[in-house]
Amino acid sequence: MNLRIKGGPEQNIPLKEGQSVLDALKAAEIYLTASCGGKGTCGKCRIKLIEGRARTDGAAKLTLEERESGLALACRTFAEEDIVIDIPENSRIVVGDKIAVSRAKDLLGLVSSMGGSVSPAVSGARVELVPPTIGDHTSDLDRLRLALEPLGLKGLNFSRDFLSGLGEALRTVNWQACLRHAGGSAVSLMPAGDCGKNKKFGAAVDIGTTTIVVYLVELETGKLIDAGSTYNSQIRYGDDVITRIVHATEGGGLDELRETALQDINGLMNATAQRHGIKTSDIELTVISGNTTMSHLFWGLPPGSIREEPYVPAVSYFPLLKGAEAGLSMNRSGAVYTMPCIASYVGGDIVSGVLASGMTRKEEIALFMDIGTNGEVAVGNNEWLMTAACSAGPCFEGSGIRHGMRATEGAIESVKITPGMGVEIGVIGNNQAKRVSARGICGSGMIDAISELFLKGIIDRKGKFVPRADAPAAGAGSIRQGDWGPEFVLFEGPSGAVTLTGVDIENILRAKAAIYAGVSTLIKEVGLDLGAIEKVYIAGGFGNYLNVEKAVILGMLPDIPREKFVFLGNTSITGAYLGLVSEGFLREAEEIASKMTYLELSVSPGFMEEYMSALFLPHTDSSQFPTVERLLEGR
Amino acid sequence: MNLRIKGGPEQNIPLKEGQSVLDALKAAEIYLTASCGGKGTCGKCRIKLIEGRARTDGAAKLTLEERESGLALACRTFAEEDIVIDIPENSRIVVGDKIAVSRAKDLLGLVSSMGGSVSPAVSGARVELVPPTIGDHTSDLDRLRLALEPLGLKGLNFSRDFLSGLGEALRTVNWQACLRHAGGSAVSLMPAGDCGKNKKFGAAVDIGTTTIVVYLVELETGKLIDAGSTYNSQIRYGDDVITRIVHATEGGGLDELRETALQDINGLMNATAQRHGIKTSDIELTVISGNTTMSHLFWGLPPGSIREEPYVPAVSYFPLLKGAEAGLSMNRSGAVYTMPCIASYVGGDIVSGVLASGMTRKEEIALFMDIGTNGEVAVGNNEWLMTAACSAGPCFEGSGIRHGMRATEGAIESVKITPGMGVEIGVIGNNQAKRVSARGICGSGMIDAISELFLKGIIDRKGKFVPRADAPAAGAGSIRQGDWGPEFVLFEGPSGAVTLTGVDIENILRAKAAIYAGVSTLIKEVGLDLGAIEKVYIAGGFGNYLNVEKAVILGMLPDIPREKFVFLGNTSITGAYLGLVSEGFLREAEEIASKMTYLELSVSPGFMEEYMSALFLPHTDSSQFPTVERLLEGR
Repeated sequence: MNLRIKGGPEQNIPLKEGQSVLDALKAAEIYLTASCGGKGTCGKCRIKLIEGRARTDGAAKLTLEERESGLALACRTFAEEDIVIDIPENSRIVVGDKIAVSRAKDLLGLVSSMGGSVSPAVSGARVELVPPTIGDHTSDLDRLRLALEPLGLKGLNFSRDFLSGLGEALRTVNWQACLRHAGGSAVSLMPAGDCGKNKKFGAAVDIGTTTIVVYLVELETGKLIDAGSTYNSQIRYGDDVITRIVHATEGGGLDELRETALQDINGLMNATAQRHGIKTSDIELTVISGNTTMSHLFWGLPPGSIREEPYVPAVSYFPLLKGAEAGLSMNRSGAVYTMPCIASYVGGDIVSGVLASGMTRKEEIALFMDIGTNGEVAVGNNEWLMTAACSAGPCFEGSGIRHGMRATEGAIESVKITPGMGVEIGVIGNNQAKRVSARGICGSGMIDAISELFLKGIIDRKGKFVPRADAPAAGAGSIRQGDWGPEFVLFEGPSGAVTLTGVDIENILRAKAAIYAGVSTLIKEVGLDLGAIEKVYIAGGFGNYLNVEKAVILGMLPDIPREKFVFLGNTSITGAYLGLVSEGFLREAEEIASKMTYLELSVSPGFMEEYMSALFLPHTDSSQFPTVERLLEGR
Repeated sequence: MNLRIKGGPEQNIPLKEGQSVLDALKAAEIYLTASCGGKGTCGKCRIKLIEGRARTDGAAKLTLEERESGLALACRTFAEEDIVIDIPENSRIVVGDKIAVSRAKDLLGLVSSMGGSVSPAVSGARVELVPPTIGDHTSDLDRLRLALEPLGLKGLNFSRDFLSGLGEALRTVNWQACLRHAGGSAVSLMPAGDCGKNKKFGAAVDIGTTTIVVYLVELETGKLIDAGSTYNSQIRYGDDVITRIVHATEGGGLDELRETALQDINGLMNATAQRHGIKTSDIELTVISGNTTMSHLFWGLPPGSIREEPYVPAVSYFPLLKGAEAGLSMNRSGAVYTMPCIASYVGGDIVSGVLASGMTRKEEIALFMDIGTNGEVAVGNNEWLMTAACSAGPCFEGSGIRHGMRATEGAIESVKITPGMGVEIGVIGNNQAKRVSARGICGSGMIDAISELFLKGIIDRKGKFVPRADAPAAGAGSIRQGDWGPEFVLFEGPSGAVTLTGVDIENILRAKAAIYAGVSTLIKEVGLDLGAIEKVYIAGGFGNYLNVEKAVILGMLPDIPREKFVFLGNTSITGAYLGLVSEGFLREAEEIASKMTYLELSVSPGFMEEYMSALFLPHTDSSQFPTVERLLEGR
């Protein structure tokens, strides 16, 4: 049997008996959004059957109307003859999307403000060898070893890759060489005259569950040359770490996941290097920062035990890898450091973040919050550190939300409800030059929408819709009855509406409750209260555009003086950059990891209570949110 | 254009413009004997043109008669239209041939006679880990590291391959493990109860220029389980190390050469393991022994500098490799040791040989001679060692000899000339059960033949034919005029004659002279004379069937009491075996290598004179060969 896509190339995609349309498309390298990894529970992999007969197993996530219009879930559709389908735009994964990378940060300023200096883990040693003669037939390697001994470099390791180029390299530099080495292994040879010159490069890599960022850096100066980012193509196997772990273990997809992210990283490394005429073999150092699951998948380590009690990862302190072993587009003998992880759900990205925040260098007690695909928090100062993972889930990335999507073109990113129940929305990519219609809502839009709905009394403290006489009967601003109960219409256009359902609001409240309960449990655990917190560092993709006022109204961020909040953006990549430009920061990251105490919230006695209390807007204990209470009184 | 082989499959082999028939056949994986690597100088890659037109560039190595019969050299034949060829049996490489491996040696007896014990470089440590709990979420690796510390195994290296199996392995053995490690790196985990049990295996590998031998060994007991051998398929790129170096450097064929020998080794490792139901992942240690060029090719190191003055190899002490890096059919984290090399033309095979001979453990002064594709000699005792390479060339393997071939079926291996000028020959594979006709002559046959011709006065001291009245006019025993001068007919059958030409005899005399001159120069260099030599260890494929009497008559071996000669066979594999079963022998091999002084004969002032004197039969200085002189007097 074959499948054809309407409007697509005239290509027939083979369909095997019993194979879902989702799997057949995947085999043809056409990827649909499938947050749940193809289990029929997220309802995102929608297709429209245009021609041919197909059996569909359950369609719980589709309305009667949608089903009648021919919509079906690709993961639950099994062809019975040749079929032709249409793929709605929302179902397609746009992995190739450019993601804007903030490069305005003064990274070198950060290095010096932290008292660090540019001193990367790869360094060069000048060696002068006596050329061989017929009377001195010492091999090239022994000749090099002899010259290295007085420099304190006895016992250096030499890889097969390094040795295969040694003979030619020594002769090219006429026996006067600069030997580059890292972590006790030889990396490369260049002319002695190039020692200390700006010839080699490094890559800082943040492997996020959703996005991957690469910084290409001059090793000698620490200067950021270029940055690139892309969606983590592992998304095609599920939105969150759990679905990926399941794919790796039960689906036998470990190698596939590793390859997928590796291709993304290499794509960025190749592209940035090429743009600046840099050979990837001159990239001699890479620092990887990612959560525990991403780090395991990058290494090709089975992640199964991460999600099984007692939640133990295979590795937390990762050995040094060589470029060739890692499979990265860099010098095959180059060094690859992986930021250490703390526990199954607190990874190298958090260690990077805490490092980049500088909180462990000060006496003041600070709170670090990374709100990304999941939510992790840390509290402490230069003496102690405690951390926890909040299991907030990826709803702020659009997963599990009826019209949820990532912060890309067409996403509602801000919402304002006017006194006359009108809805003003801001849509990403929509401006005077180009009209872009809303096609979904992203995390910041959700936070805006719920705090607005709450402040305007359209939802109550439990997040339930309150009937209002002044609401319009239809269109934006109306509350209508959908297939799964009531929903608030944010936008209605010719190609459909964007709504926020009661179920969506419940999901978002659960996520914000998990984050807030994580923070308050952690702070209580160390015997403090919120008043003791002198700084709140907000990291994660969110860190760039989170409206702190609205997030406090939602009860996601604590109600403390706003000047204490510092937005750091993506600290995982910043921490990786720091480790790249200075070996001292790599050591510091290891110290942070060894100092950090992990609190397992799932077995922490107070957590469940904190969580239940935080399910309300903003919180059951209104005294914790005094400014919000004043706002509500003033309505 | 296409090429078809008469009597072969109906397959058309494509021929490009300007591509030689040899190259076209090679591309189709049909390999012809081409000792010179396809330069038109060895005259071995003969084909017969049956149909079609082809241009031939020079045919110096063919007689007029041969040319008229359609014979041509494949490396010098360029088709001008579709052609059909026939490939004479002698031109085909029979790489798949089984080579008999002597396994009668009492290897374990050798180990104990040398005062060694079975104690391989991979060993197991019993570790008991505390299983993880929800309160102790230490990662698997940190848990293992903690348990290893008190055992003195702090700082062990862990490869990505090892770590990828760690989590499952620890859970399978229920946290009670036997950690196998070698050279400071973890290799595998097995149940604690299996510690010290006979579960793991090792491979000793001799990479000869002509043949490859693998011993599969039980690591715990040192017992030889099986042995396999095959021709080194690199033969298709040339017979000797020089043509292979040229192919690697000028022909860009380094990877090809590496892959070729690797496939041979892996084929033997897979076959022997499979025969005994052993998983190759249970092969945890391999010791490689080969000459300097073979070792470089195995490692994928450019061998170019080996043949360029001042003859410096890239590496002589090879670092430890992992199974995965080496590409061997064994545990990916297993250890691969490479026997150290001394100089460009004295390699790990000689270090292995000297180790296996035991000469460095005794006070008596011994001579070690390895006569294989080349010839290397060493002299010394437990205090000093000196070595040299003789550049004898591969003529005893059949290369450069008109009807030369290796010691396989159809080769004349012994020759006796009867008083009436009859010729009695012994042919390999010819016995009462099976009649095999002679199709060439191998090394031992050449030595026999020349000493017989000399003793019977058919050739003089210079190796020139002496006209004899009693010689038959034609057939075996006759001296006939060939295209390159006179030749002695050893055998004449329906499919042609096997002869020894005047040029062949010159080549053989040059080879024997190089070997003898190497020995005498070396002995003089250390200020001794032949009388000081108390043992002569003969190694190399030859070691098994060399007729010492005849070799002395030829003047290849020194004329010293016959009881001083000890035949050791293939000592390269024996030395590799010793290194495999005991780490102490690996250390001893390194000591031997560091102790061995290399004498570069090409710049040694006395060598040329010694060589010129040794070009005679048996030698210009007849006093060096008293027993031969007596024999000649007694004629």
